[in-house]
Amino acid sequence: MFKQPLPTLARDGNTVRILDQTQLPFRTETLVLRTLVDAAHAIRSMQVRGAPLIGATAAYGVALTLLHEGGDDTALARALQVLGATRPTAVNLHWALTRMHTRLAPLPPAARLDAAWAEAESIRADDVATCDAIGRHGLALIEAIAARRPGPVRLMTHCNAGWLATCGAGTALAPIYAAQTAGIAVDVFVSETRPRNQGLLTEWELRAAGVPHTLIADNAAGLLLMQGEVDMVITGADRIAANGDTANKVGTYLKALAARAADVPFYIAAPHSTLDFACADGPSIPIEDRGAEEVCLLRGLAADGTLTDVRLAPSGTRAVNPAFDVTPAALISGIITERGIATASGLAALYPEAQR
Amino acid sequence: MFKQPLPTLARDGNTVRILDQTQLPFRTETLVLRTLVDAAHAIRSMQVRGAPLIGATAAYGVALTLLHEGGDDTALARALQVLGATRPTAVNLHWALTRMHTRLAPLPPAARLDAAWAEAESIRADDVATCDAIGRHGLALIEAIAARRPGPVRLMTHCNAGWLATCGAGTALAPIYAAQTAGIAVDVFVSETRPRNQGLLTEWELRAAGVPHTLIADNAAGLLLMQGEVDMVITGADRIAANGDTANKVGTYLKALAARAADVPFYIAAPHSTLDFACADGPSIPIEDRGAEEVCLLRGLAADGTLTDVRLAPSGTRAVNPAFDVTPAALISGIITERGIATASGLAALYPEAQR
Repeated sequence: MFKQPLPTLARDGNTVRILDQTQLPFRTETLVLRTLVDAAHAIRSMQVRGAPLIGATAAYGVALTLLHEGGDDTALARALQVLGATRPTAVNLHWALTRMHTRLAPLPPAARLDAAWAEAESIRADDVATCDAIGRHGLALIEAIAARRPGPVRLMTHCNAGWLATCGAGTALAPIYAAQTAGIAVDVFVSETRPRNQGLLTEWELRAAGVPHTLIADNAAGLLLMQGEVDMVITGADRIAANGDTANKVGTYLKALAARAADVPFYIAAPHSTLDFACADGPSIPIEDRGAEEVCLLRGLAADGTLTDVRLAPSGTRAVNPAFDVTPAALISGIITERGIATASGLAALYPEAQR
Repeated sequence: MFKQPLPTLARDGNTVRILDQTQLPFRTETLVLRTLVDAAHAIRSMQVRGAPLIGATAAYGVALTLLHEGGDDTALARALQVLGATRPTAVNLHWALTRMHTRLAPLPPAARLDAAWAEAESIRADDVATCDAIGRHGLALIEAIAARRPGPVRLMTHCNAGWLATCGAGTALAPIYAAQTAGIAVDVFVSETRPRNQGLLTEWELRAAGVPHTLIADNAAGLLLMQGEVDMVITGADRIAANGDTANKVGTYLKALAARAADVPFYIAAPHSTLDFACADGPSIPIEDRGAEEVCLLRGLAADGTLTDVRLAPSGTRAVNPAFDVTPAALISGIITERGIATASGLAALYPEAQR
């Protein structure tokens, strides 16, 4: 089982400790969440991010709410409403809140707090096991490439779908860590993932783990795929519709187009909590627009080592900033889940209980 | 005729004044080039950038060389060699140097300096006329869209192929400025164009000209095209091979793929000096790799207004940074040149004299 070098999320008595990902990769700081407001803010401001980690944080946010506001229906409903409104695209958030509601609603109010802590912990533990299973299934794909040709298996990913995005090993990076453990040489193209640069989190993760990798601007992915520099693309997901269309970090679709044009396999790695069979297809997935300032301002380290926001375009510049895009199922070679690898049309057979 | 708000390049006695584009869009500063070393540095460090402007700067660089080193064959050869080695992808550089050599080599050394100044000025003036002609031809495409549907014509561009990239109105932006002059409403999606963020130059240009526009992260282009938010994509070019494959700023290919998937026309705007019939196809075009630091360091304005470089990834991070990519001819709806609009296969008919 993969052990996180630092826990992304952990209960600490009546609080929850998180790694503050808005400070990464520059500063390693933990934050203590004490209230519903803290938990909602952590999700909305991306102090925690990554679909699985968002879901687990929301679950703990329910427990924090009940701790301070009591276990009655009003408090429970308020927790679900406030946390559910934080981010619209990742369906794991709603999956986790629905699981909390299903567990807690039948209980008497006095029993709900203990059950909330336990169910949140169960969601966290399930995510750890899910990540490991995704790693095992994805490893088979990497092994098959390694068996076909000499040299390291050259992978490309987008955004961060590593341990930082989950409670465990990650989704897209779990097979890569599994390959490392299995002694298979890999080299990972890491796309910086503007505007929030979550690729730098991936760079940080892989560097810390000693996995060889190469940072690229998002724009460079097309040429590298065209030139035959990549054996496989693998990304995470924020919501997978019933037909297999997949919402993931904006820019994923462009990589999928370029992979298809170069005949390079393109895989999505995601837990079943990312499946949304109630959503028919990609156009039905709500896409979060995060506003202009994320495009116009950027955080980095100044020469004196201070964490500094620099402005790229004047305040008031009109910008659109969709946080996600949709990759049509037809461009996806397969979806790596904890139960195995399925094509878009095979997902329903793998998860019959998830269907409407 | 379009008048540049500030000249990108102008002779000033025995020197050449340029706008320092490494300071834009944050500071408007001019630099004085006095020597071959100055001119070569200006091109290599991207103080001047944009294929047409690089060509004109190289031409003036020849004159500066002869001014200080005399007009003999050694000086001329040195100028051509040093300037020709500054950047590998934009063929306008070699076109301009070849034109200088063709004009100067037959002359007696004593006559070469005056002829060099005159020929550089002629290259500059030709570029102004070329940009205007590209604007007129491209305008017809925008007019046709405007005639088909109400509301502004929604264009998308990449990098900066505006007046800053030329001695005149620009290439990709020339039709947009022509539309503005003709009273046609437009709205331009401006892709920031990592890693050097030349899209911010386009944002600055369009803002100064009062052309409505919307800044986006490069990653957002796919979703916007998929969602039907764009009527036409138009970019410049750095080299167009004989078969119509086109090298342009890295990321262009991804936009071309997404435009094709969405059935949105994708046009290249470029002068004939960008045509390279000696280059058979895209894979034959040399692609400049500009090194890791451009990906790891970024320039912006700190809160106190100082121009600040911030580090995104640690020094020593492995990165590949191809400055250009290649868009296959099959993805290009047409190439807008000063003689008209041609498909890839129609280019040779438009420029019979340019063929081998």
